Amino acid sequence: MCELLGMSANVPTDIRFSFSGLVKRGGETGSHEDGWGIAFYEGKGYRSFHDPKASVDSEVAKFIQQYSIKSKQVICHIRKANKGRVCLENTHPFSRELWGQIWSFAHNGQLKGIKNKLLSGYLPIGTTDSEYAFCWVLSQLRETFPQKPKSKVKVRKLIERLCREVAEHGIFNVLMSDADNLYTYCNTKLSWLTRQAPFAEAQLLDTDVCVDFKEETSSTDVVTVIATEPLTSNEQWTKMVKGEFSVFSSGKKMYTGIR
Amino acid sequence: MCELLGMSANVPTDIRFSFSGLVKRGGETGSHEDGWGIAFYEGKGYRSFHDPKASVDSEVAKFIQQYSIKSKQVICHIRKANKGRVCLENTHPFSRELWGQIWSFAHNGQLKGIKNKLLSGYLPIGTTDSEYAFCWVLSQLRETFPQKPKSKVKVRKLIERLCREVAEHGIFNVLMSDADNLYTYCNTKLSWLTRQAPFAEAQLLDTDVCVDFKEETSSTDVVTVIATEPLTSNEQWTKMVKGEFSVFSSGKKMYTGIR
Repeated sequence: MCELLGMSANVPTDIRFSFSGLVKRGGETGSHEDGWGIAFYEGKGYRSFHDPKASVDSEVAKFIQQYSIKSKQVICHIRKANKGRVCLENTHPFSRELWGQIWSFAHNGQLKGIKNKLLSGYLPIGTTDSEYAFCWVLSQLRETFPQKPKSKVKVRKLIERLCREVAEHGIFNVLMSDADNLYTYCNTKLSWLTRQAPFAEAQLLDTDVCVDFKEETSSTDVVTVIATEPLTSNEQWTKMVKGEFSVFSSGKKMYTGIR
Repeated sequence: MCELLGMSANVPTDIRFSFSGLVKRGGETGSHEDGWGIAFYEGKGYRSFHDPKASVDSEVAKFIQQYSIKSKQVICHIRKANKGRVCLENTHPFSRELWGQIWSFAHNGQLKGIKNKLLSGYLPIGTTDSEYAFCWVLSQLRETFPQKPKSKVKVRKLIERLCREVAEHGIFNVLMSDADNLYTYCNTKLSWLTRQAPFAEAQLLDTDVCVDFKEETSSTDVVTVIATEPLTSNEQWTKMVKGEFSVFSSGKKMYTGIR
């Protein structure tokens, strides 16, 4: 199984505190040694860093821990391979363009029979069931809406339905973003918390790092962090329930559907 | 105008020597200060590094100069903005998936009226004429061949025709890759050289760096480097002619069409 980390914020925010906890799970406090990746949205722009090496040994991960990239949306994944060999093309987050936006996707779990679904318009580069599922979701979105629909609700409803359909194939904890929204689906494990004023200190679980967010933020900042397992020991994380589909934007939870 | 650098090799090869010359043109020996990007193919896998900052001031560029990524195909671009503001989504190389391969694209020049062409299946994220031209080329490829055709010649012929059509809109020096092939079109300036046994020393033009390729290579290595302007002072670069479309693969020039 893999580890996921996502962030949604109302101002460009540095994710290095959370990231430095997560990378420890890539070969030190966890056995997720089969590569990792992180994707940052900066406005409409998108850049990602991938490495097929274990995150604790990765020079790229060390660089990301030193270099501040401020972003309103981040998706990160560290991999424990089950299907698909360890190589660059099999490292999450995967990304594709739809409607002039970059969509990105990171998945925890295993999916059986997903590759029987028909794809149109998007094909996987690698061999993971995860990337295949992502291509199928985007294929369905584009088939249904060849142009971007004005109604955000229609898009959200379709994504929720598609997530529920993919989840029928196995375990499907997922983070997916289109630059504006962070779509999440919890099948077995996802937790989240929102940091906002009054800010306090936070202590990482996986490494002896503490940060005082009072000193790092301004009073109007709203930042939500989502992860497969809580990353800090002294904050109140909310565990999502099985079948929970939630959408975050600008740091806030905008929608939850549970079935 | 911008600067381009491409590499095609028959073995995974380190591009840092050429890159360290090119980055100097991003604000030091050249005035291309409006961001830069580099894309590496590792097998079918693809990773790129982008920064809207000038390459001479970029922490990401410093990291790339320190960290060895070996690749058989590389495309790099440093930007002097003419159309489209300085931001992440306007930095080359651009990339999209077609037929289960990542295609990437970097352009030097300006194109007038390119945005009157109809797109299908690919939309730009940013506002450059370059990304628009790339989306149009891919739209045409996909419209003509919804599935990947068996004939590589058919694909190459179509790309050549599309490049000539884009070039009617202005200045179009371009590097485009599909992981296997490096397609190049020279409108005003592109030069290339192939390094193979017997290897010798090379001296960069833009910075006082010299490398002895005898010590860095094995006797069967074949590496071709393509750039808008020659990068070394003591090697024989071949200047492409106006209207030259050439395709490189595994370090060798496989095709040239001139009109």
